Amino acid sequence: MEIKTLENIDITLSPTSKINEVDFENISFGNTFTDHMLVCDFADGKWQQPKIVPYAPITLDPSAKVFHYGQAIFEGMKAYKDDQDDVWLFRPEQNHDRFNKSAVRMCMPEVPEDIFLGGLKKLLQIEKDWVKKGQGNSLYIRPFMFASGKGVVAAPAQFYKFMILLSPAKAYYSGEVKVLIAEHYSRAANGGIGAAKAAGNYAGQFYPTKLANEKGYQQVIWTDDATHTKLEEAGTMNVFFRINDILYTAPTSERILDGITRKSLIELAKRENINVEVRSVLVDELVTAAKDGSLKEIFGAGTAAVVNPIVGFGYKEEYYELPKLENSLALELKAKLTNIQYKKADDTFGWTVKI
Amino acid sequence: MEIKTLENIDITLSPTSKINEVDFENISFGNTFTDHMLVCDFADGKWQQPKIVPYAPITLDPSAKVFHYGQAIFEGMKAYKDDQDDVWLFRPEQNHDRFNKSAVRMCMPEVPEDIFLGGLKKLLQIEKDWVKKGQGNSLYIRPFMFASGKGVVAAPAQFYKFMILLSPAKAYYSGEVKVLIAEHYSRAANGGIGAAKAAGNYAGQFYPTKLANEKGYQQVIWTDDATHTKLEEAGTMNVFFRINDILYTAPTSERILDGITRKSLIELAKRENINVEVRSVLVDELVTAAKDGSLKEIFGAGTAAVVNPIVGFGYKEEYYELPKLENSLALELKAKLTNIQYKKADDTFGWTVKI
Repeated sequence: MEIKTLENIDITLSPTSKINEVDFENISFGNTFTDHMLVCDFADGKWQQPKIVPYAPITLDPSAKVFHYGQAIFEGMKAYKDDQDDVWLFRPEQNHDRFNKSAVRMCMPEVPEDIFLGGLKKLLQIEKDWVKKGQGNSLYIRPFMFASGKGVVAAPAQFYKFMILLSPAKAYYSGEVKVLIAEHYSRAANGGIGAAKAAGNYAGQFYPTKLANEKGYQQVIWTDDATHTKLEEAGTMNVFFRINDILYTAPTSERILDGITRKSLIELAKRENINVEVRSVLVDELVTAAKDGSLKEIFGAGTAAVVNPIVGFGYKEEYYELPKLENSLALELKAKLTNIQYKKADDTFGWTVKI
Repeated sequence: MEIKTLENIDITLSPTSKINEVDFENISFGNTFTDHMLVCDFADGKWQQPKIVPYAPITLDPSAKVFHYGQAIFEGMKAYKDDQDDVWLFRPEQNHDRFNKSAVRMCMPEVPEDIFLGGLKKLLQIEKDWVKKGQGNSLYIRPFMFASGKGVVAAPAQFYKFMILLSPAKAYYSGEVKVLIAEHYSRAANGGIGAAKAAGNYAGQFYPTKLANEKGYQQVIWTDDATHTKLEEAGTMNVFFRINDILYTAPTSERILDGITRKSLIELAKRENINVEVRSVLVDELVTAAKDGSLKEIFGAGTAAVVNPIVGFGYKEEYYELPKLENSLALELKAKLTNIQYKKADDTFGWTVKI
């Protein structure tokens, strides 16, 4: 695909840049932002003129509905720079599509493509120096929208703010990740908002994750809330299991986010003739496979880490260590996917989009 | 109980008041605020000096976690004025207690009693002219807290803002309320955050409620997400069913809010020798009772409306009209409860607290 740059946008450039103050070699994920941001207000039933302005605090009425009723959604994307200094996005139309699905579920207005993708392109053109070359480096992109309309009445707002922030990122390394399978807490309900990238889905995970941290686990593997027998997501990522030489991942549903890394890994695995089956994996099945040695790998899949290998899992007070493999499918797939993202391998899927 | 006024608080009074601009006879719920608000920041691991300041917009970094991860909770309370011009609260310690339970579930710091209740008392002393006398009039109180800490990383924030807003209210009249029983959508998961007054719980209800509105229903009766067979809440309220002369309401759980109006109505009903049973009511049971005429009443219970009678319900494309009763338990209990709140009846429970 090609993104048409949004030209009908008000631009106020920052008189100075922070870029020389940033130590790009030692940057923690999600805490440093570029010089500019995109802002567009929804009012009177329509999107107003989008603006690119210097990164700055925003001012809201304390009764703005985002503070009280949680109407807020986001996306996570990345921009990469190739060896020719061109900047690339990875399947950005998928993020735009999912963003609007989240918007519908949260009763918020959809954001048109020209503002979401065209505005992002313009913003990236201005901030292109913030995208650093080199495997692992990227510019993390955070499009988000929240209810700015006033009033402590539990009903959808009339006013919204759509924004895009950019944050330079190094390769995401989370250390050795052990996961704890949820026996009691849950991430999403049947008929709930688990498939939306809704803000409230994330805050609900913090407490169970804290309890897992206290037991020595970095993340929780979420199970279905009704029976806690089906493995669904790992932390804020989709999750894959390799039993013998078959990769399994749960089908997307109302409870499970339709992850773009997840679906890309499935397509990539198929191209590479890796057996991949999209079906629910049961907790019992995992425990049995861990005991008989057929469980080879578990990994999370998401935009921030791309692929996040897991070294072991806990369940019912038992810890199951995974084998250390020479030929990890997680690392093979991660290498192949990031090579596409960094334009070091042929993009046979047409996933990458030039800025 | 008695609330100790918080004296260690910085107060900046507004040079002018909006009170004479407000038409108290024609006021819509939740849209008008008094001259002042309470603000207290959590930073460096502790609550900072609380402040009462003129009501004004607040400024936040666009990466504040409330916008991205939905760490936000609130409470709803009311202040009433009696014929002697004294201002009263109703079971405020219950709201404080529940607020802190919500805080724990959302990985947020608890707010101490001196700031929550003592600060509220000080704020109400300043704003006492905004509490109008007369049955139905009240000053709605909105304590809330959200994550103000920066960073697009899905982890609990280090900085929070606790605030109290006050909004004058008339008797809440919602017109004739018809409810639609949820067959697909859900409000809360087992092991989720349904028992917390978390912002994200509310936004998730907007879309299913909109679909119900389009079918001519004002609210949704939420059912358990796993089987959709148990009746749990109505809109943003707890719900009671009267079958013959027994009142039923679901037990509180992880999925159901521990409503203060709900628990007060249960205690009041017991005192009045009304049969009240706390147990799950099944959808099938309700439909059978509606068909054989034993279903007499359904009503919601919550702070805003106190008691909200329901005229009929829809289920599987059928509409079931409720009888129009001479002796409605809903209205009897509402009258008895509001008489306690307005100090027109003896408060044998010790529920009311003087400001």
